Amino acid sequence: MHAIGIDIGGTKVAGALVTEGGDILRLERRPTPAGDPDAIVDIVVELVRELGDGERIVAAGVAAAGFIDAAQSTVYYAPNIKWRSEPLRDRLSVRLPGIDITIDNDANAAGWAEYRFGAGRGTTDMTMLTIGTGVGGAIVTEGRLLRGGFGAAGEIGHLRVVPDGHPCGCGQKGCIEQYGSGRALMRFAGEIADAGGIGQPLARAREANGGALDGTVVAALIADDDPGALEALRELGDWLGQACASIGAVLDPQVFVFGGGVAMAGDRLLDPVRESFLAHLPARGFHPEPQFLVAQLVNDAGVVGAADLARIHAGSSG
Amino acid sequence: MHAIGIDIGGTKVAGALVTEGGDILRLERRPTPAGDPDAIVDIVVELVRELGDGERIVAAGVAAAGFIDAAQSTVYYAPNIKWRSEPLRDRLSVRLPGIDITIDNDANAAGWAEYRFGAGRGTTDMTMLTIGTGVGGAIVTEGRLLRGGFGAAGEIGHLRVVPDGHPCGCGQKGCIEQYGSGRALMRFAGEIADAGGIGQPLARAREANGGALDGTVVAALIADDDPGALEALRELGDWLGQACASIGAVLDPQVFVFGGGVAMAGDRLLDPVRESFLAHLPARGFHPEPQFLVAQLVNDAGVVGAADLARIHAGSSG
Repeated sequence: MHAIGIDIGGTKVAGALVTEGGDILRLERRPTPAGDPDAIVDIVVELVRELGDGERIVAAGVAAAGFIDAAQSTVYYAPNIKWRSEPLRDRLSVRLPGIDITIDNDANAAGWAEYRFGAGRGTTDMTMLTIGTGVGGAIVTEGRLLRGGFGAAGEIGHLRVVPDGHPCGCGQKGCIEQYGSGRALMRFAGEIADAGGIGQPLARAREANGGALDGTVVAALIADDDPGALEALRELGDWLGQACASIGAVLDPQVFVFGGGVAMAGDRLLDPVRESFLAHLPARGFHPEPQFLVAQLVNDAGVVGAADLARIHAGSSG
Repeated sequence: MHAIGIDIGGTKVAGALVTEGGDILRLERRPTPAGDPDAIVDIVVELVRELGDGERIVAAGVAAAGFIDAAQSTVYYAPNIKWRSEPLRDRLSVRLPGIDITIDNDANAAGWAEYRFGAGRGTTDMTMLTIGTGVGGAIVTEGRLLRGGFGAAGEIGHLRVVPDGHPCGCGQKGCIEQYGSGRALMRFAGEIADAGGIGQPLARAREANGGALDGTVVAALIADDDPGALEALRELGDWLGQACASIGAVLDPQVFVFGGGVAMAGDRLLDPVRESFLAHLPARGFHPEPQFLVAQLVNDAGVVGAADLARIHAGSSG
C-alpha cells in the first residue's frame, strides 16, 4: 500500500505518493507561504487529497525543519515558519480523517530515506551528516530512527568542536556547523583567497563574481581540482573527520553518510574526512572501521523518508 | 525466573543470582586471576554453577571492561585481561549447556541496571556517565541499550572537548576523560594547591599525605566544603556540563545519570554540571531540559545489569 510524504521547506512544499519500495509515483510542488502558517496547513491538506485521489492511503508523513516533539505531533519551533508549539498533527488529522498523520524533522526524514533506500541500506547503525548551508544530522541505531527523549536528537551540527570557537546561530560557540558547513567552506576559501599563492584563482573568481565567493563558484573550482579550493575543502573535511571521531565514540555507526550540496564533491570531500577520522579515532585498531559514503537520494529524500516513517507508524507494511 | 549476572573486574569477579525485579538473592566474589584468561573462564563457570544450584536458570550475563562485538559473543579487547578477539560466549556455552550466555561491556551493564532499577527508571532515553578514575558511559534510547554497529557505542569518555588538549590513554588528545574524571579532579586540585590562597588546605593535605593528593583526601575536603576542593570540583563539573551539551545535541536524553566514586559528591558536582550544561545548550529554551541525577545502584550495578540483559536476550521474562 502506498503512503504520502510531504516536505515543508523554506521556499517550497513538496508532496509525493511513495511505494513501499521507496519509489515516487507522483510528485507535486507548491511555493511555501512562509509567513502564513494557516495557508501551509491548507496546502498540506490539498496535497494529501490530490496525491491520494483514487488510492487507498492509510498514512501521510509530514517533514519540516525544526524541533518536533517525541510524540511526533507538535512543532515546538520552526526556524522558517511562524510555528511555536504548533499542534500540526491534530490540525491535519481533523481535516484528513482516516489517514494516520505523523510529523518528523526534515533532516530525520531525509536520513531515514537514505537508510532505507540509499547509501545506508543493509546496515543497522548509520549516522548521516547533511552538509548544506548548515550541518544537519540524522541517526539510525539498530534499524530505528533516533528521535531522543524530547524529539530533538540528531542535531549533530551543534556538537561542539572548539571551546569558545566561532559563534553559531544557535547562540553557542564552536559548533561543528561553523567548521563543517557550506558557509564554513566559503569562509575557508575566502581566507585562502586573501593569502595569495594557491589562493589566486579563488581571489580572481571572487573578483569576477562581484567580490563574493558563493557555492557555485567554489564548487566549479573544486571540480577543476584548483589547489586553493581543494585546500578549503580539505580543511572542511578535516574538521568533519574530527567530529565523526567523537560521534563514533558515542554512537559507533557502521557507516557515515554525507548528504547536502557540499557532499556532491564526493571523494574530494570524503578522502580528507576519512583520513582525519582515523587520525582522531580513540583506541584505533581495536575494532572495525566505519565506511564513509555519499548520499544516494539527493532529491526528494525528505518526501520518501516522511512517507516511509508514516507507513511504519501506521503499522501498515502490507 | 531468576538470572545470573557476572562482572569481571580488574581485581575481583563478582557473581549474583538476580530476580526479575533487580534484587540480588545471592552474591559471590572471587579474586580475578588477571594474568590467566583460562582461569577466569573457570571461575565464571564455577560461579554460574554455584549460584544456579537448585534454581531454574535460563540465562547468564557476563560483563567485562573492553570492546565486545555487536553479537555479544566476542571480547575484541580487554584493557585488564589478556583477551584479544576472545570467543568468550562460545567457551562458556560449551561448559554451561542449556544456559543462554551473553557478554556485555561492564559500563553498559551498570548503566542498564541504573535505567531499569535506579535513577533512570521511568524514562525512555538516559545517558549515564560513570566518573571514576576515567569516564565511562552507557546510553539507553527508546528503552534499549545502545550497543552500536560494532558493539562499541557509549564510549563517552572519548568524546573530544579540546582540540590538541590533554593527552589521553586512548592515544588521542582532549577527550572528556582528561577533563571530567577522578584523575582530572586530582590534577585540578593539585593546580589549586600550587596556587596558594584558597589552595592552602589542599596543599597542607597533600603534604600530610606524603606529597600526593588522592581521591580520599580530596573527597574529605569536598565534604567539608573546603573552597579550594570545591573549586576543583566546579571545574570538573563545568567540563562535564559542556560535554553533556554536545551529547544532548546528538542524543537528547531525558536524564543524565552520574555514577562512579566522584558522583558521590552529589549536588556539589551536579549543580555546576547543570549550570554549565544550560550555559552551553544550543538553541536553549526551545525544548524541555533534561534532569541531572546521581546513580542509585552504587554497588553491584554490573551484576544486576548483566543478569537483566541476559534475561532479555533469552526472551525469558516469565
